[in-house]
Amino acid sequence: MRFFSDNAAAACPQVLAAIAEANRLDTAYDGDAWSKRLDGALSALFETEVAALWVSTGTAANGLALATLCPPYGGIVCHRTAHIQVDECGGPEFYTGGARLLLAEGEGAKLTPETVDGLIADIRPEVHQVQARALSFTNASEYGCVYTPQETAALGALCRARGLGFHVDGARFANAVAGQGCAPADLSWRAGVDALSFGFTKNGGLSAECLVFFRPDLAEEARIRRKRAGHLLSKGRYLAAQILAMIEGDLWLANARAANAAASRLAEAAGGDRLLYPVEANEMFVRVSAAEAASLRAQGADFYDWGPGEARLVTSWDSDPAQVDALAAAIRAL
Amino acid sequence: MRFFSDNAAAACPQVLAAIAEANRLDTAYDGDAWSKRLDGALSALFETEVAALWVSTGTAANGLALATLCPPYGGIVCHRTAHIQVDECGGPEFYTGGARLLLAEGEGAKLTPETVDGLIADIRPEVHQVQARALSFTNASEYGCVYTPQETAALGALCRARGLGFHVDGARFANAVAGQGCAPADLSWRAGVDALSFGFTKNGGLSAECLVFFRPDLAEEARIRRKRAGHLLSKGRYLAAQILAMIEGDLWLANARAANAAASRLAEAAGGDRLLYPVEANEMFVRVSAAEAASLRAQGADFYDWGPGEARLVTSWDSDPAQVDALAAAIRAL
Amino acid sequence: MRFFSDNAAAACPQVLAAIAEANRLDTAYDGDAWSKRLDGALSALFETEVAALWVSTGTAANGLALATLCPPYGGIVCHRTAHIQVDECGGPEFYTGGARLLLAEGEGAKLTPETVDGLIADIRPEVHQVQARALSFTNASEYGCVYTPQETAALGALCRARGLGFHVDGARFANAVAGQGCAPADLSWRAGVDALSFGFTKNGGLSAECLVFFRPDLAEEARIRRKRAGHLLSKGRYLAAQILAMIEGDLWLANARAANAAASRLAEAAGGDRLLYPVEANEMFVRVSAAEAASLRAQGADFYDWGPGEARLVTSWDSDPAQVDALAAAIRAL
Amino acid sequence: MRFFSDNAAAACPQVLAAIAEANRLDTAYDGDAWSKRLDGALSALFETEVAALWVSTGTAANGLALATLCPPYGGIVCHRTAHIQVDECGGPEFYTGGARLLLAEGEGAKLTPETVDGLIADIRPEVHQVQARALSFTNASEYGCVYTPQETAALGALCRARGLGFHVDGARFANAVAGQGCAPADLSWRAGVDALSFGFTKNGGLSAECLVFFRPDLAEEARIRRKRAGHLLSKGRYLAAQILAMIEGDLWLANARAANAAASRLAEAAGGDRLLYPVEANEMFVRVSAAEAASLRAQGADFYDWGPGEARLVTSWDSDPAQVDALAAAIRAL
Repeated sequence: MRFFSDNAAAACPQVLAAIAEANRLDTAYDGDAWSKRLDGALSALFETEVAALWVSTGTAANGLALATLCPPYGGIVCHRTAHIQVDECGGPEFYTGGARLLLAEGEGAKLTPETVDGLIADIRPEVHQVQARALSFTNASEYGCVYTPQETAALGALCRARGLGFHVDGARFANAVAGQGCAPADLSWRAGVDALSFGFTKNGGLSAECLVFFRPDLAEEARIRRKRAGHLLSKGRYLAAQILAMIEGDLWLANARAANAAASRLAEAAGGDRLLYPVEANEMFVRVSAAEAASLRAQGADFYDWGPGEARLVTSWDSDPAQVDALAAAIRAL
Repeated sequence: MRFFSDNAAAACPQVLAAIAEANRLDTAYDGDAWSKRLDGALSALFETEVAALWVSTGTAANGLALATLCPPYGGIVCHRTAHIQVDECGGPEFYTGGARLLLAEGEGAKLTPETVDGLIADIRPEVHQVQARALSFTNASEYGCVYTPQETAALGALCRARGLGFHVDGARFANAVAGQGCAPADLSWRAGVDALSFGFTKNGGLSAECLVFFRPDLAEEARIRRKRAGHLLSKGRYLAAQILAMIEGDLWLANARAANAAASRLAEAAGGDRLLYPVEANEMFVRVSAAEAASLRAQGADFYDWGPGEARLVTSWDSDPAQVDALAAAIRAL
Repeated sequence: MRFFSDNAAAACPQVLAAIAEANRLDTAYDGDAWSKRLDGALSALFETEVAALWVSTGTAANGLALATLCPPYGGIVCHRTAHIQVDECGGPEFYTGGARLLLAEGEGAKLTPETVDGLIADIRPEVHQVQARALSFTNASEYGCVYTPQETAALGALCRARGLGFHVDGARFANAVAGQGCAPADLSWRAGVDALSFGFTKNGGLSAECLVFFRPDLAEEARIRRKRAGHLLSKGRYLAAQILAMIEGDLWLANARAANAAASRLAEAAGGDRLLYPVEANEMFVRVSAAEAASLRAQGADFYDWGPGEARLVTSWDSDPAQVDALAAAIRAL
Repeated sequence: MRFFSDNAAAACPQVLAAIAEANRLDTAYDGDAWSKRLDGALSALFETEVAALWVSTGTAANGLALATLCPPYGGIVCHRTAHIQVDECGGPEFYTGGARLLLAEGEGAKLTPETVDGLIADIRPEVHQVQARALSFTNASEYGCVYTPQETAALGALCRARGLGFHVDGARFANAVAGQGCAPADLSWRAGVDALSFGFTKNGGLSAECLVFFRPDLAEEARIRRKRAGHLLSKGRYLAAQILAMIEGDLWLANARAANAAASRLAEAAGGDRLLYPVEANEMFVRVSAAEAASLRAQGADFYDWGPGEARLVTSWDSDPAQVDALAAAIRAL
């Protein structure tokens, strides 16, 4: 009963099949047949013309997007607990050439127009202080909460008004879309998003993320930076094939729904009082005493502690229903 | 009859099998069972204790190695036609934070102690000029020539005397070792090499390179930089598994030998006068008139022009013997 | 009655005389007679062997020191209100190549071992998070408070224990030394400081700061970085001459004492209740209502508001005693 | 008889007087009365609206200009012997965040449209190679040659056609203008120049260069980068005052004419055969045997050797006519 991360799950069979199918000589880098289909496939999915680049990690996708949206002397507004702040070892600073993360607050690891406005209002508009030039949030958030289309659009409006580039770290974007039951466009360009790190690895890929630009003019620079950063794989078709396999036939959505459903079952078992945040995607943060946590582990459950008296449980596309039911029962019995 | 690059070849079956075998939940990043075996496997291969990091591209391996060996204000001696100079879009500058490539000459894209000494002698030893801090060469070279253990050791001695870090870009290191029939150690640490970008992708991998540090104390910094650059894949076991599959059982050597043998057959057919450089690995650069090139292409051969009256033909681990024979015959018949 | 900043004061006559005296042909950069005396003069002042580099701004001195003490992938602990964080437009990020400032709390803009330890304890010691590699504080602090030798030594001990480089931003170091009545060594190397940005501009210089390394081995790298950053002036003797003029004869100390004395007179007039922080150097932060501030301004006083109901008053080496007395009287009369 | 550099000459009396005149309290940074007059004064001089920033060194001016004109992943075309390549310790790489200098040839250290076109034609227009994004030349050149308005305009046209930013390193721009007898506009914006590092230090300043943007929209970014690099001096009025003192009353031109005239007298004495390049500004490069060089030195002349059998002699605004005549006589007598 392993619920410690979707980050380490197996790849789904269709992805492995697509890799095998792509295992033949083709043009190197992104000149192959698979890579060339990427713009079209993502444009269809998002119902607008986009430029789409495969990369192998979310940190790379985030770094490339942010370097394209923020100059070296600019600031990037993000949540104090954002992945780009706490889990990428300074990747944004490296990619941008020294931009600064400007940390805002918000419940459930979610920014709000108020917290962002407050942060920016404190910056003197002069050369002595780093000025905000971009905003980045994570959807689903680091606490498994989801920005709705309306919430996204409100921040998008703020970005336009302030002249900020707008990036979404979508390592679990599929889970966010599945949770909202909306169109991918509603959580991206229709809400003012300029660039999206669209994650596939956590959702059943082997190693594939898609950096989607809703302003396709930004993509040329990102393609150059991708090469320069060593992220232009010579056999890029294997990455493109993974993404295409997950998009075509809506596997990405089915996988995310499966993971979300498993989390919902666990949340139902936990009940409202235990939940630190509403479970809106595939992560659950719960209050458990040390004894309770030990009891769950004694029954075979594997998960992370997340602070004193708190635990994180993550479901994934391949969470075993029997294990989910067993864990749900164990939680109920606490 | 495709001889345009080994960079775009298929992955070999053992590599795909290893990926399938690794397709199960394990610890993320490099905490999994496969990644943990990497140091040991490479140490055994190199007959000394090494630290080994998987990465997905040669550009990343080179950039990480050079950033570890050269400060932002230093210079990296390399050949004027080195891959790091002409094919990585400034990757070394990005990774090092602004170091400069110092370009030396040499036949067959190979540095010599004389060309390197001459270059360094021209630098005034004062703060106004960028001082050399590292040396990097490619083995096999960009023209398919191989540095022998003696040649490598001579440059290694120069590096020690000058206080330069010594890096080898080994995108085709397997072909170099196969060509020399020596131990991997002879072309690396025994000759003074500090860090090696050991390539697997061109040699039958799907997407895997191994950055090998012969001074293991350098690896900690490289691991941090790898994360920061977005090259620490969350499912790193798929990269480790590829490398292990190719090392264990000496598949890397068998593949390289096959590619080299195919190139030798073509070289024999071409004869000495046509060859721009001796064929010592898996690349052949030949003099052909435009009419001759057209004739070969009319017979189905696929290759790059490499300047006026010159062509490059590259064999790979899976070059079809029948196609090699057919091309050899076509070359003989020119 | 201008009390808004020491940063904009005139240069003192001895400094102008020294510049005039240096106005003759000599070797360029730092090869001249004045620059060559710098190491010796500062070593004498600090009672130990130091390496001393002139630069023209505090931001440059800070950036060069931090780049020498912290790698691009490291973190620099500083106070949330430190000058390097709020007033240098990302200078540290630029100089270090993307290091991150790690923000700690503390009364009076002063770090304590407790706040620093707490900050570091929250960092997971793994490649996903930016690790602290240096600590920097400002003495006198941004709120005019002074770290004592004991407080400095406590943080120095913490730095040694944690393996952090220790930098002091001493834009008002002279005021701190004057305030403590101790030896310059007591607030620097004897307390474990590795590098000090020793400010002269605010203290009567025209444009001169001295970057002092108490580990002289660090200076070579800093000299290279200074050139690279465009801070190696071709007529460096004018900077060296300013510093020498202020050190020789203890003008630096006399000027600082004058400024501090003026601030003390104002503090006495204000009385304890108005003071936000103890006045230990040449800055006073006071509580004043809007009406009171307007009243002082109506009487000719010039100063900055520093938040609602708060004002900052800064004295300088040349604060006019009559003006100080007049302002003191006006404050008393509020 | 010191002819080794104009870089180390004294400052002229008017400059020192202007500094003394500016020695009073004013607003810090560039908010003072002198700094505010800079845009206007330079706009008048160049007969168009410009934005002008003081900085203290040419390396800083060049770095800021290039960072504004070239992205981190771009290339800057310059001469193989350009100051930015051989004398700034990688300053351009530091300021741009890793851009690359692309080295072209040309007689007298001067680029030509042909050499630049040839260089660019060799770059494959794809992400694997660093693409040219800016061009920078030095006027007067590193060998004392001057680009005419026509030559400048030809390179300006090339820049427009290729989409390159156009920067002129004008450490000796005054000498170039004096040599051509043209308007400053003719060697700058009328010929397509975007940014000029206008040097005053070598021409009688104490420490002042002026970065002039002929596209004023570029200046905002440069102002931010200046602060970030530690080049926004708190008492900037002393720099502005120097520049104003030299511009108002055309002191800059008088000083440059004096230096050029001295060089011309030496060139006349040397005669055509000895001259490596025509003497068009204030530098002379001559062929002299070791014995001849020793003879000149025995007579009190001070200058640099510039390669085997070559010497460089530099005159300055304050070259003593008697010394110039003495040296001229000594050269004639060789």
